[in-house]
Amino acid sequence: MRALLFDGSLRLDTTVPEPQPEANQALLKIRQAGICNTDLELIEGMYGFSGILGHEFVAEVVDGAPELVGKRVVGEINVACGECDFCRSGVRSQCRNRTTVGIHQHPGAFADYLALAAENLHIVPDSVSDAAAVFVEPLAAAIQVLEAVHISPTEQVIVIGTGKLGMLVAQVLKLTGADVTGVVRHQQQADLLAGWHIPAVKIDELEPEQAQVVVDCTGTSQGFADALRLVAARGTIVLKSTYRGTPQVDLTQIAVREIRVVGSRCGPFAAALRLLESGLIDTESLVSARYSINEGVEAVKHAGSPGTLKVLLDF
Amino acid sequence: MRALLFDGSLRLDTTVPEPQPEANQALLKIRQAGICNTDLELIEGMYGFSGILGHEFVAEVVDGAPELVGKRVVGEINVACGECDFCRSGVRSQCRNRTTVGIHQHPGAFADYLALAAENLHIVPDSVSDAAAVFVEPLAAAIQVLEAVHISPTEQVIVIGTGKLGMLVAQVLKLTGADVTGVVRHQQQADLLAGWHIPAVKIDELEPEQAQVVVDCTGTSQGFADALRLVAARGTIVLKSTYRGTPQVDLTQIAVREIRVVGSRCGPFAAALRLLESGLIDTESLVSARYSINEGVEAVKHAGSPGTLKVLLDF
Repeated sequence: MRALLFDGSLRLDTTVPEPQPEANQALLKIRQAGICNTDLELIEGMYGFSGILGHEFVAEVVDGAPELVGKRVVGEINVACGECDFCRSGVRSQCRNRTTVGIHQHPGAFADYLALAAENLHIVPDSVSDAAAVFVEPLAAAIQVLEAVHISPTEQVIVIGTGKLGMLVAQVLKLTGADVTGVVRHQQQADLLAGWHIPAVKIDELEPEQAQVVVDCTGTSQGFADALRLVAARGTIVLKSTYRGTPQVDLTQIAVREIRVVGSRCGPFAAALRLLESGLIDTESLVSARYSINEGVEAVKHAGSPGTLKVLLDF
Repeated sequence: MRALLFDGSLRLDTTVPEPQPEANQALLKIRQAGICNTDLELIEGMYGFSGILGHEFVAEVVDGAPELVGKRVVGEINVACGECDFCRSGVRSQCRNRTTVGIHQHPGAFADYLALAAENLHIVPDSVSDAAAVFVEPLAAAIQVLEAVHISPTEQVIVIGTGKLGMLVAQVLKLTGADVTGVVRHQQQADLLAGWHIPAVKIDELEPEQAQVVVDCTGTSQGFADALRLVAARGTIVLKSTYRGTPQVDLTQIAVREIRVVGSRCGPFAAALRLLESGLIDTESLVSARYSINEGVEAVKHAGSPGTLKVLLDF
C-alpha cells in the first residue's frame, strides 16, 4: 500500500505491507486525512518519531466487527491499555501506557490502510461529509478547552495564534456567547474571523490584564508571554499547543495575580461530531489545499508554508 | 515611634512620627509581628520597596470607630479601592489600585503604630493568643490553596519547600484527610512534620507523576521543575511563592499532560482565625526566635539564616 513515511526524511513508499488487524482492531481504508502542525514538528525530529505519519482522518471500516464493517468512521488517536489508574478512572487519553496514532509508537493514517482499536472508532453521521469529518480530531482538541475551563457568556476571551487549530478554538469558544477576540498577524486571518463575527486585532492593540480567558495556540515563548500580559488577575491561560524549547515564564506574576495555566490536549470526538452535524462549525473555509496522497511530500511542504491553514490528503 | 525601615539599607529609626489615622482608618498599636520571606526579598531590593516593613502582626486598636477601640485585631494587608472591577466583584485582594501593608505603597507593621483601613481588621477571639494570632496572615495564605484547588480526601498531595509557609500549608492540607507528604532537606523539618503525622521525604525519594496536587513553596526554578516531575497527568501545581527571576518552564509537558498551574496569594483571615480558635494548627513549634523591635535588624538577619522558621518581634 501507499504510505507517507518519516524515518529521518519524509517520503512516499508504495510498497508498505497492509496492516493485519488484531482481534480488538478494525481495518480502516483511509478516505481523507489532514495535516496538522504536530506532523510538521515530527518531521523536524522534535519527538524522535519514525514511521507512518498522520492522525487526522476519516475512513471506511473494511474488516473487523460486523456492526462496523462498511461504516464511515473517525478514530481517537490515543490507544489505551485499559488497566492503568487513568484508564480505570475513565481518562483514557492520559493512559500511562498509551500509544498515539501517527505520533507515538503507532502507525499513522497517511496510508491506504490503518489497523486501529475498534473501541477508538466513532461512526460518522451521513450528514457530515468526509471533508468535514476529517476535522473531527482537531475540532475535538479545540472543544477540550471547554472540558478544562468553564467559560461564562459574560467573559472576555482572547485566542492568540489563529492558525489551523486556533481558528477552530475561536469558533468553538464563540458558541459559548462569550466575547471572543482573535489575535491575527495577517489580513487573511482577520477576514476569516470576520465571517464568523469574531473581532480580529493585532497583538499590540490589546490592553493588558483584561481577558478572563486567554487561549495560546502559538506554541511560542512570545505567545505565552503575551497571554500572561493579557489575562486578568484570577484569569485562565489555556495552553493549546506544544512549545518549542522550554520558555522562560514569569511564575511570580502567576502567583501574585493568581492566574491559572491549564494544559489541554485531545478532546471528545462525540461532541465534535455533534457540532459538525449541527452545522455550527465552518471547516470548509479552513482548507488551504487538497493533494492526492501520491503528492504527499509536496502536500506536507505546502502545509508548512506561512499563512497555510489545513492541507488535506485524498486517497 | 520606633520603626524598622528599609530605604536601601535596613535600620531601626526611633524618631518616626506616629501615623495620623484618616476617617476610614483605625490606629493600631502593634503587639507582635512576624518576619516573612517577602520581607527578606524586599530588603534584597527585589520589588523596589522603601519604607516601614512588616505585614504579619497582631495589634490593639487605640483610635478609630468606638466598637473597635480596645480590641485585639489582625489586619488584611491589601487595601482596596472599592471601585474597580475586582472590588465590585468581591475580589478585593486583587484590587487593581491596591496598596499592600509593608509591601507596596503602604507603611508596614514593624513599628509601634500603624494606621490601617478599619474594614481590613478582624477581631481576635480571646482564646487565640498573640503568639498564635501573629500567624493569621501566613496561615490565611496557606488556606488560600484550598480556595484555588479542591483537594479531595483520596488524593496524594506533596508540599515542596517546608519552610515558614510550607509548614503551614502542610498542616492545612493535612486537615482535608488527603495523603499529604512534605519534602524536606533537613532532619529538623522531618521531625516537625512527624509531630503532625505528616510523612517527610527527600525530593529524590519520590516517584514521578504520582501526586494529584503539588504545592511549590520554594520560589525556585528547581522547585517548580520538581513539582512538574511529581504531578500526575491532569494534576495541579499550586504556586505558593514568588520566584527569583523567570524560570524556564516545560510548557509542552503542561499541555500534553494537561497539568493545571494555579497561582495563590493572600487568603481568608476569618478561616485562619477559625482554625486557630479550634486549636487545629500548631504555630508554637514554628517559632525559631523572638526579638524586641529594638533588635529588629538582628532579628531580620536571623530570619534569613538557613533552617530558620518564624522569627517574631515583640513591642
